[in-house]
Amino acid sequence: MASNSCKSKVLLNVLSYLDYKTGKFIIVGSKRVGSLYRVIQLSIIGYLVGYVFLSKKSYQTKEESIQSTVMTKLKGVAVTNTSEFGRMVWGPVDYVIPPQGEAVFFIVTNFIETPNQKLGHCAESPNVPDGHCKGDEDCAEGELVVAGHGVRTGRCLRDNGKSNGTCEIYSWCPVERRCQPQHKHTNMLREAENFTIYIKNVIRFPKFSFSKANVQDTADKFHLKKCRYDEALEPYCPIFRLGDIVNQTGHSFQDMALKGGLIGILIGWECDLDRDPSECQPRYDFTHIDVNVSRESSGFNFRHARYFKTGSGESYRTHFKVFGIRINIMVHGKAGKFCIIPTIIHIGSGLACIGGGAWFCDWILLYLMKNREFYKDWKFENVKKYEAEVKDMPERDATHSGHEERERNCRRFSSSLFN
Amino acid sequence: MASNSCKSKVLLNVLSYLDYKTGKFIIVGSKRVGSLYRVIQLSIIGYLVGYVFLSKKSYQTKEESIQSTVMTKLKGVAVTNTSEFGRMVWGPVDYVIPPQGEAVFFIVTNFIETPNQKLGHCAESPNVPDGHCKGDEDCAEGELVVAGHGVRTGRCLRDNGKSNGTCEIYSWCPVERRCQPQHKHTNMLREAENFTIYIKNVIRFPKFSFSKANVQDTADKFHLKKCRYDEALEPYCPIFRLGDIVNQTGHSFQDMALKGGLIGILIGWECDLDRDPSECQPRYDFTHIDVNVSRESSGFNFRHARYFKTGSGESYRTHFKVFGIRINIMVHGKAGKFCIIPTIIHIGSGLACIGGGAWFCDWILLYLMKNREFYKDWKFENVKKYEAEVKDMPERDATHSGHEERERNCRRFSSSLFN
Amino acid sequence: MASNSCKSKVLLNVLSYLDYKTGKFIIVGSKRVGSLYRVIQLSIIGYLVGYVFLSKKSYQTKEESIQSTVMTKLKGVAVTNTSEFGRMVWGPVDYVIPPQGEAVFFIVTNFIETPNQKLGHCAESPNVPDGHCKGDEDCAEGELVVAGHGVRTGRCLRDNGKSNGTCEIYSWCPVERRCQPQHKHTNMLREAENFTIYIKNVIRFPKFSFSKANVQDTADKFHLKKCRYDEALEPYCPIFRLGDIVNQTGHSFQDMALKGGLIGILIGWECDLDRDPSECQPRYDFTHIDVNVSRESSGFNFRHARYFKTGSGESYRTHFKVFGIRINIMVHGKAGKFCIIPTIIHIGSGLACIGGGAWFCDWILLYLMKNREFYKDWKFENVKKYEAEVKDMPERDATHSGHEERERNCRRFSSSLFN
Repeated sequence: MASNSCKSKVLLNVLSYLDYKTGKFIIVGSKRVGSLYRVIQLSIIGYLVGYVFLSKKSYQTKEESIQSTVMTKLKGVAVTNTSEFGRMVWGPVDYVIPPQGEAVFFIVTNFIETPNQKLGHCAESPNVPDGHCKGDEDCAEGELVVAGHGVRTGRCLRDNGKSNGTCEIYSWCPVERRCQPQHKHTNMLREAENFTIYIKNVIRFPKFSFSKANVQDTADKFHLKKCRYDEALEPYCPIFRLGDIVNQTGHSFQDMALKGGLIGILIGWECDLDRDPSECQPRYDFTHIDVNVSRESSGFNFRHARYFKTGSGESYRTHFKVFGIRINIMVHGKAGKFCIIPTIIHIGSGLACIGGGAWFCDWILLYLMKNREFYKDWKFENVKKYEAEVKDMPERDATHSGHEERERNCRRFSSSLFN
Repeated sequence: MASNSCKSKVLLNVLSYLDYKTGKFIIVGSKRVGSLYRVIQLSIIGYLVGYVFLSKKSYQTKEESIQSTVMTKLKGVAVTNTSEFGRMVWGPVDYVIPPQGEAVFFIVTNFIETPNQKLGHCAESPNVPDGHCKGDEDCAEGELVVAGHGVRTGRCLRDNGKSNGTCEIYSWCPVERRCQPQHKHTNMLREAENFTIYIKNVIRFPKFSFSKANVQDTADKFHLKKCRYDEALEPYCPIFRLGDIVNQTGHSFQDMALKGGLIGILIGWECDLDRDPSECQPRYDFTHIDVNVSRESSGFNFRHARYFKTGSGESYRTHFKVFGIRINIMVHGKAGKFCIIPTIIHIGSGLACIGGGAWFCDWILLYLMKNREFYKDWKFENVKKYEAEVKDMPERDATHSGHEERERNCRRFSSSLFN
Repeated sequence: MASNSCKSKVLLNVLSYLDYKTGKFIIVGSKRVGSLYRVIQLSIIGYLVGYVFLSKKSYQTKEESIQSTVMTKLKGVAVTNTSEFGRMVWGPVDYVIPPQGEAVFFIVTNFIETPNQKLGHCAESPNVPDGHCKGDEDCAEGELVVAGHGVRTGRCLRDNGKSNGTCEIYSWCPVERRCQPQHKHTNMLREAENFTIYIKNVIRFPKFSFSKANVQDTADKFHLKKCRYDEALEPYCPIFRLGDIVNQTGHSFQDMALKGGLIGILIGWECDLDRDPSECQPRYDFTHIDVNVSRESSGFNFRHARYFKTGSGESYRTHFKVFGIRINIMVHGKAGKFCIIPTIIHIGSGLACIGGGAWFCDWILLYLMKNREFYKDWKFENVKKYEAEVKDMPERDATHSGHEERERNCRRFSSSLFN
């Protein structure tokens, strides 16, 4: 026996690292705790496989920062017929600002024109609160009119009889007539509803160096020129009718055309790069971006001017207050591709949680069950007192007790064998 | 003994929380399972240290949303010499649209000019399919020409003898000659090849509030003015020659100059903020963004106009169809900095997976090995039947069996000591 | 007994899966290892709860890619009074480039005007290094002046007596006077300090499809028109005074107005979507974006021109070199919302690390403690030799030894009961 133990000891020192050590367990009859543990185990595995991996695809590494280039081109003609300026024809050159086909652009749908403004003296517009006056003393010379059009000259202009008027200012005269746009306006571009927007969008996911365009490489180039986007029928056609876009946001085109508005075209790319690239397609959404706080800030408009010179070299300009639809093409998206790291992380933490479940069940077993003490005694082998005694006997070092232990095991085993 | 057990019991209750409980293991000789376990253990550790931490730097928290400001400035002059308009000199003011140095801008390299357009009546361009007519009935008055230039007047203009012509329209006349650009065009800006683009890019990673510019703070300011970007020699020079950029995308400049094109300049920032900030440098890439679907949509061009007024106040304009290179500067990048959270996550899930490995080895040991039953008996101590018996004896409560257990341990130990 | 074991065996096979298996532990007296383990346990739990969950909110899934629309509107008037061109009034139409209210725009604060440029012959500006000449041979006809204004005609223009001059060029003449702006300049828009910028910003987090605007939906619309942003008093007012913005960046307005500069307005959104949306508010920061490398590239300016035609149809233009403040509104932000996945990950890896701690303590116990051998003997039950013997006896298969084992347990237990 002793020799046997020696052999095994030698073996231990040599190959001990290839011995397999596995935890010793006790089997407890309590079906309640047992089932609880199984439930925990299965629910975690279910969550991991069903939710994390299958539904959320968390085995993929995600790329959310997308690179995108957008190029736009508008087509369509509109005619306005104003009493003062007669008929005008509007092409993309005139109604798209800026004209160079960017992702954020403005389409003129209505305008207030103030032609032939010259630098000179005239009355401030009555719409400017700061411009009102009762007498010249209200128009200190050289003072600017806050939120107004120019600098005061010192005179207060009143229609005779009237008690108050507006200061005379040095400015581009005549100043703009600050009239709110009405529907009867004849200078609305009503045909704008039929303008078409061609959107070319090329995206790229730098992490995967994957790029794709929203324009299909279909053989049928002719179709591409004729098609119109339709959520149901033509979801991938890159040509959009302005009227449709506005309607999709739940607004009437003519209303929006009147006072203008901000519209966002959201192009969303959801790409699972473990699948075929052809399955990675854009999704178009249309939203009316608006914070309708005050009547003032609702709608969308801005002013611009065209400058001219007379033969004598004097400057004059035509001033436009243009109302219209500002389109903001926003591209977002994310791509996913299998990656070992997130997979391991999820599996690992799942396993750990199962371990946590075991800990929880132990806790119930040892603190809540009826015969917890019995379980404790079997689960925990208290070796403290022998420790103490080992310390008490200097002549026999720890290893001997180890030796004894092994001896005991033998006896225990052999007896079990031969009786 | 009993008193001893009492003492230890008291001790237990008091300091039991500082007792160290460690799992009991059995050592199994099976070298196969043992080595398998070691292999699993080592491969996981190797993966964790080698791949996750060293190669992927997953101990860092990453920031992928980059803030960037781009400012551009072009230099260079070109001369065009057209039969009709004579020699023209083009400076940045003329060929850069918009001129204010943005990240997306257009460089005119070729153009079709239609001077002196006035609102009036003229024949629609024959290139507009919708404009053709056989008789006046095809040109219903007031109807717009789809994708055309104006509104029909009701007359169909035909060269005498010809059976069909185009409708007369009210529009800016004369309408643009829709000729495709040819190489012989004399109004190409051939010198555009030598234009230089100075790009100033300042980025910021909000999460780390770290910012950096692509322009070195070198003492040698003079060098900065003279240098030209070169992938090999001058990778950090922020001045680019337009011709070089186009060539880098694998295209001939003169071809692209003719019909125009979209070019993306990708500025990539990969910053390891655990290292010295000076190591965080931009990388420039040049790509030709194109979806050459139909001849129509290949290349890049747009139209714009300059408005004038005659002495008598009548409006007229010069209409340009400009072909050219639209440059889109896209900045992307990510920064990483050590962070405890991801580190813990990876270590934790790594450990958990090792645990999973052990579970797998147990499974092999207990279900596949030859003497699995033997292992089962040693690994699992079945205490169920004693449970049963404990339940059967009401007069002795669970704790006693616990007491007994401790007693037994003593006897077992002492006997092992003194024989 | 045997029958008993049989019953239990049957039971095992049937319900064994609902038996609860729990690891067998030994309790060791070593308070040092015990406390060490507790410390590790508590510190990991503390880190997890305190740092990861409470402080870092890692129980949330984060969205960092934000969609944003910005719309800007400027108000204010300025007057310049130059000897040559007299008094000029500047409204937003004149000083905002581009005028259509984008997120990146330029405000003219100073300018150098070169009126009435015509295509023709004149001397190259002496500021262009490449334009200098000693004789006609230096001005090869048809050669472009690098970084200059036109094409050489072949003549070298020198003031009589002077040894060197500049080449005559064909260009827009007269060429711009390359004078650096000085403070005494009378054509600075000094009142620009009081211009106000109204910023409307609507953001959206696609992942949570949550959107919000920086403009409060307060009833008090009037207040919105009157308020001015102030970090302390009016942190949510969307109207900014240009002077304040510049001062916030730590610069004097008049200095920056002179030579121009790039200013970034950072709008930061930090949204905890587990809270009330009203708590998700923008934060405004102002930064002076600059890489002051060479005097050349400091400040900000660009050139643009207005084109005119004479009665006879000859083109001429007014050339502007405008200095000013380019404002770049950058929107960034992130939103977080509770999500089970990251929560599980953190809990899981935390638990795993506690396990790692136990492993570490075991290591100390078994390799560093004084009576490590004793611990080893109790922790590890070496069953190898019995394995060997099992293999030696073909006639009795492994299961029997298992049977024996169970028998032994019974005896062990009953004896413990009845003595």
